[in-house]
Amino acid sequence: MTIQAKPTQVTTGPIIGSRKIYSAPQAHPHILVPFREIALHPTANEPPLPLYDTSGPYTEQNAQIDLSTGLPQPRAPWIASRAYTTAPGRTIKPEDNGFTPDEKLVPLCPAPQTIRVAEDHQLVTQYEFARAGIVTEEMIYVAHRENLGRCEAHAQAAALRADGEDFGANIPVFVTPEFVRAEIAAGRAIIPANINHPELEPVIIGRNFLVKINANIGNSAVTSGAAEEVEKLVWAIRWGADTVMDLSTGRNIHNIRSWILRNAPVPIGTVPLYQALEKVQGDASKLTWEIFRDTLIEQAEQGVDYFTIHAGVRLAHIPLTAKRVTGIVSRGGSIMAQWCLSHHRESFIYDHFADICDIMRKYDVSFSLGDGLRPGSNADANDAAQFAELETLGELTKIAWAKGCQVMIEGPGHVPMHKIKANMDKQLAVCGEAPFYTLGPLTTDIAPGYDHITSAIGAAMIGWFGTAMLCYVTPKEHLGLPNREDVKTGVITYKLAAHAADLAKGHPSARLRDDAISRARFEFRWEDQFNLGLDPDTARNFHDETLPKEAHKTAHFCSMCGPKFCSMKISHDIRDEADRQAGLQAQKTLFAETGAKLYMPLPGN
Amino acid sequence: MTIQAKPTQVTTGPIIGSRKIYSAPQAHPHILVPFREIALHPTANEPPLPLYDTSGPYTEQNAQIDLSTGLPQPRAPWIASRAYTTAPGRTIKPEDNGFTPDEKLVPLCPAPQTIRVAEDHQLVTQYEFARAGIVTEEMIYVAHRENLGRCEAHAQAAALRADGEDFGANIPVFVTPEFVRAEIAAGRAIIPANINHPELEPVIIGRNFLVKINANIGNSAVTSGAAEEVEKLVWAIRWGADTVMDLSTGRNIHNIRSWILRNAPVPIGTVPLYQALEKVQGDASKLTWEIFRDTLIEQAEQGVDYFTIHAGVRLAHIPLTAKRVTGIVSRGGSIMAQWCLSHHRESFIYDHFADICDIMRKYDVSFSLGDGLRPGSNADANDAAQFAELETLGELTKIAWAKGCQVMIEGPGHVPMHKIKANMDKQLAVCGEAPFYTLGPLTTDIAPGYDHITSAIGAAMIGWFGTAMLCYVTPKEHLGLPNREDVKTGVITYKLAAHAADLAKGHPSARLRDDAISRARFEFRWEDQFNLGLDPDTARNFHDETLPKEAHKTAHFCSMCGPKFCSMKISHDIRDEADRQAGLQAQKTLFAETGAKLYMPLPGN
Repeated sequence: MTIQAKPTQVTTGPIIGSRKIYSAPQAHPHILVPFREIALHPTANEPPLPLYDTSGPYTEQNAQIDLSTGLPQPRAPWIASRAYTTAPGRTIKPEDNGFTPDEKLVPLCPAPQTIRVAEDHQLVTQYEFARAGIVTEEMIYVAHRENLGRCEAHAQAAALRADGEDFGANIPVFVTPEFVRAEIAAGRAIIPANINHPELEPVIIGRNFLVKINANIGNSAVTSGAAEEVEKLVWAIRWGADTVMDLSTGRNIHNIRSWILRNAPVPIGTVPLYQALEKVQGDASKLTWEIFRDTLIEQAEQGVDYFTIHAGVRLAHIPLTAKRVTGIVSRGGSIMAQWCLSHHRESFIYDHFADICDIMRKYDVSFSLGDGLRPGSNADANDAAQFAELETLGELTKIAWAKGCQVMIEGPGHVPMHKIKANMDKQLAVCGEAPFYTLGPLTTDIAPGYDHITSAIGAAMIGWFGTAMLCYVTPKEHLGLPNREDVKTGVITYKLAAHAADLAKGHPSARLRDDAISRARFEFRWEDQFNLGLDPDTARNFHDETLPKEAHKTAHFCSMCGPKFCSMKISHDIRDEADRQAGLQAQKTLFAETGAKLYMPLPGN
Repeated sequence: MTIQAKPTQVTTGPIIGSRKIYSAPQAHPHILVPFREIALHPTANEPPLPLYDTSGPYTEQNAQIDLSTGLPQPRAPWIASRAYTTAPGRTIKPEDNGFTPDEKLVPLCPAPQTIRVAEDHQLVTQYEFARAGIVTEEMIYVAHRENLGRCEAHAQAAALRADGEDFGANIPVFVTPEFVRAEIAAGRAIIPANINHPELEPVIIGRNFLVKINANIGNSAVTSGAAEEVEKLVWAIRWGADTVMDLSTGRNIHNIRSWILRNAPVPIGTVPLYQALEKVQGDASKLTWEIFRDTLIEQAEQGVDYFTIHAGVRLAHIPLTAKRVTGIVSRGGSIMAQWCLSHHRESFIYDHFADICDIMRKYDVSFSLGDGLRPGSNADANDAAQFAELETLGELTKIAWAKGCQVMIEGPGHVPMHKIKANMDKQLAVCGEAPFYTLGPLTTDIAPGYDHITSAIGAAMIGWFGTAMLCYVTPKEHLGLPNREDVKTGVITYKLAAHAADLAKGHPSARLRDDAISRARFEFRWEDQFNLGLDPDTARNFHDETLPKEAHKTAHFCSMCGPKFCSMKISHDIRDEADRQAGLQAQKTLFAETGAKLYMPLPGN
C-alpha cells in the first residue's frame, strides 16, 4: 500500500501574469491576507492591480507543496488562544470508508491534527463572538480581504466611479472589522470556519460583501486517488472558487476527505447525508438519527466548514411534489422523502434539528440549509413544495441562531427569469436575511451541454438581487461527470456571473478591474488585457490562433478588423485630431461653418 | 479559373433526431412554411414536437444542393404578382470587388437573377402594404411560422401553461396574418425581405413575436472562397441563426455576396459602408455620397435584406466621446467620425438620409439604424454620446417611416446589468417602438474568451425587456476571428438566451419545449432529452463520455448520481408509493400517527 499523493501531483505556480502577495491590515502585522497582483505594461503608467485570490499557497512563486504534511495553518494561533478542549477524536470505523477492503484502502492523510471541541460555556462560533461584541482574527482577515488590501483612502477614491442598484443591500465603501462583526451578529453574513480547519484562509459570505462562488468536487467509482481529489480542489480554487463542496460517495470517503481538508485553504462543505447513506449501504429506510449524528461528529472533527442539512424536507411537504413535472431532483431531498414515506414519520433531521445545532456549534460548522425540494424544471419553479420548504428553512434559521450557529440557505435550481426575484424577496423575508446560496438558477431547460450558460444568466441576476454565494454548474450538468476542463469552464463562468452581480450592485471596488482591462483594450496593451482577464491562458490562445506572432502582442490592431479599419485605432486618431483642434482653439470657427453644435447638452439622465 | 463552390462543400442533412417538414396555413395551400419535428419515444405517448426552423432546404432528408444554381425561390410568384419593373442592373466595376486582380477573382454566382425595382407609385415595402391594409404572403407566412404551424386550438391549450412578465408587450396567443399586418403598420415589427431575394423564407422581427438572433459572418484576408463563405451561413442557420450579417471586407466582396444571397434562406444584412470604404481603398476621408449611394444600389440589386446605416453619428456627437474609456468601438461609427472630423462637416449619411430612404424603399431593404457610438466598456455605458445618437435614431426612424421604409434600431454593446433596462426603456420611448436589435450587451469586461457568456446574460435580460433581435457574440470576441466551433457556440448560446427571454415574457408557445425536455428527463428518455436540446450532438457526446454504452441510453440513472442514489429514480419510487397509499385510501390514518398534516395549504402567492 502506497500513499496515493505525491507533491508533484497537484498544479502549482502562479497564474500567468500574476504575482502572489500577502498583505497585513493596519495594526495587525501578523494577519497575512493573500492577494494576487497584476503588473501592467510601463506605458499604462498604472500601479499593479490587486485581485482577490482564493488559490492558497499553491500559486506562490516557489510553492513547496507536500500533500502528506498539509498546508500551513494561518488560523492555528488564533484557535489555540481560544483554549478549547482537545478531544481524542472518534474512532474510525469500517463504514466510514464505505467498507473499503484493506487492499483498496487509501490511507489517512498523515498530517498531524489536533482535534478540538468547545465546551458549552465557551464562545466558539463566529456568530457567538459577533453577538458578544468580539471582533475575531477571522473578521479582521476578511475585512482586509474584501478591501482588496487597499487602505480607506484608496477605497474612497474607487467608490467615486461606482454606481449600481443594490435592492436594499448596504455595501460599505470600506469594510471595517466592526462592520464584519455587525453583519455576522445580524445573521446577514457567515464565515464558515470550523475550529478543526486551521489551514483555512477565512472568507465571508453575505449580501453586503463580494459575491462568492462554490465549486463541487467528489470522487466517483472510477477515480478515487487522494491526490486526484486534492487536485480537483486545487484546480477549482486556482480559477476562483471561494468554497468547495466535497460531494463524494462510496469507498474511501473518510480518508480522502482527510487529504482534502489538510490541503484546503478554502471552506469545505459536505452533505453528511451522503456518507450516512453509505453507512447503511444505500438503503434510505435504514437511516437513523444515531448514524446521522455520528457522521456529523466524524466530519466536524475532520474540519468540514459547512454542512448541507436537508431539514426542510418535511413529511407534509412531500405530497406537494406529486404533480410536479420533475418531482424531487435534490439527492438529499429525495433520500429524506424516501425515508419519511417508508416510515410514515416526520423527518428525523427535522425532529432532531436542535440536537444538530448543538453538535455543529461545538466546532463552528456552519449550516447550509438544503433545498431538498428545489425545482428541477422551469415548470416546477416557485411552486408550493419549494416555498413550503423555504418557509420551514426560515423557522429553522431562527432556531440555529438561538443555538449560536452560523446559517446560510440554499436555493434553486431551475427558474425562468421572471420568477427569479420572487425567490430572493421571499428568502429575505422568511429567512431573516441569512445569506442565500443558490444553484444557478437555470433560466431554461432546453440546452443540455450549455447549462453553465443557462444558469449563469440566472446566477448573475439572483446575485445582483442579493444572493451571497452562487453554486457553479458545469457544461456536463444533467449529462455526466465534469472533467478538468468542465470544472474550469464552470468556475470561470460563475466568476464572471458573480462579478457582473458585484458591478450591478455597485460594489465600490468591482469596477477597478473592468476599467483596467478596458483601458488596456483601448491602448492595445494585449498582454495586459490577457492577464487582467479571468482566464489569461485561453484569452492568449484565442488571440494567437489568428495572430500568432509576438509582434502582434504590441500591434495597434487585432484580427477582427485588421490594421486598416480598427475602430479603436481610428478613435485614437480622432482624439489626436480633437486635441490638435483644441490646441488651435479653432473649434468654434470650424464647427460654425457646418451649423453644428460642437458640444451637445448632457441629457437629463 | 474555376468556380470555388461545389455542392458537397456545405453541410447538409437533418439535425440528428429531427425531421424537416413543410406546413401550409389554413386556406393557403401554396404557402409552405418550414419546421422541424422531433419524434419522441413511444413510451412518452406524446405527438412529435414541432420547432421553429431556420436552416433552409439544407436540412431536408435528401437535400440536393447546388450552390451554382441557388436555392428554390418560395417568394418568386408573390414578387412576380406585384409587377415591379425589371431593371438591367448596375454594371459591376473593379472596385466592387476591391480591385481584385483577374487571376484571383472569384466568379459571380451563375444562378440566374431577375433584378426588380419598384416605381414611385407602387407599394413595395411590407410597411407600405401594411399601412394600406394589405396582408401580403410574407405576413401569412410569418404568422404560421410564429404559431409553430399549430392551429388556434392548440395554441390556446399551450397558452394555459404560460405565464410571464412582458413589460407592456402585447404577445397574442395565436398569431393571425392581420396581427402581423397591424404590428408592421405600427412600426413595431419588420419582415426584412428585399424584392430581389426570392430565395428568402420570411421572418418577422418585433417585440410581440419570438425573439430572434443574428450571426455575423464575413471573409477575411486568408479565406475568401465562395463555398467557404456559404458554408459559414449554412452552419450558422443550421444551429438557429434567424438572420445573418455578411461583414466581409476586402477582395471579391461583390462576387462572394452573390453566392451568399442566392443560397440564403434567411434575411441577409450588410454594412454598406464597409464596401464603400474598400472602394476608396480604406481612406475614410475620401468617402463621398456618390460612392455610398452607388454601393447601396449595388447591394440592393443583389438582394440584401437590411442595411446597417450609421446615420446617427453626427458631427456634434463626436466630442461627447472624447472622455470615454474606450472611445468609439463601432467600425462604422469610427469611419464616419473620421470622415466628419477630417472634413469638419456634418455626416453625409445624415445629410442624405431622405435620399437613402428613397433608394431602400424601392427594393424594400429594411433599415438597421446603426449605433456607431455604442459603449465599448461598462465604463462608457449609457453615456451622453450613446444616448445622443439614440435620440437621433429616433428622429430618423420617423423620417424612414414617412418614406415607407421598414426600420429597426441597433443597440449596445457593453452595459452592466443595472443599466440595461434604461436602454430598452429609452429606445421604446424615443424610437416609437421600432424593433430593437442589440449586440449582447456584455455585462462585464473582464472575461475575454468568455464574452459569449458575459453577453448572453445581458442579451437574455434585454430580450426579456423587449429587444426583438439579439446579435450573437462568440468566444473570440475582442481576441480574433471566430472559427466554425466558435460560430456554433455563439449561435447556441444566443438561442438559449433568446429562449430564456421568450419564457420570461410568457410567450405562449415557449414552454412547450422546456416541458417536453423536462418530462423526458424525469422519465429517463435520454435520446429524447438529447434530441429536444439545442445541440443534440454535444449533449449525446457529453453523456457518452461517462456512460458510453447504448444500454445506458435507456438506463434509469445517470453518471452524476449513479444507479443507487438517483434522485429522479427515488422520486418515481415516492410517486409509486404515494399512488399505492392513495389506492388504499389510508393516508389519513397513516399520517395522523405522526401528527403531521399530509397536505400543506398552498402559499398565498
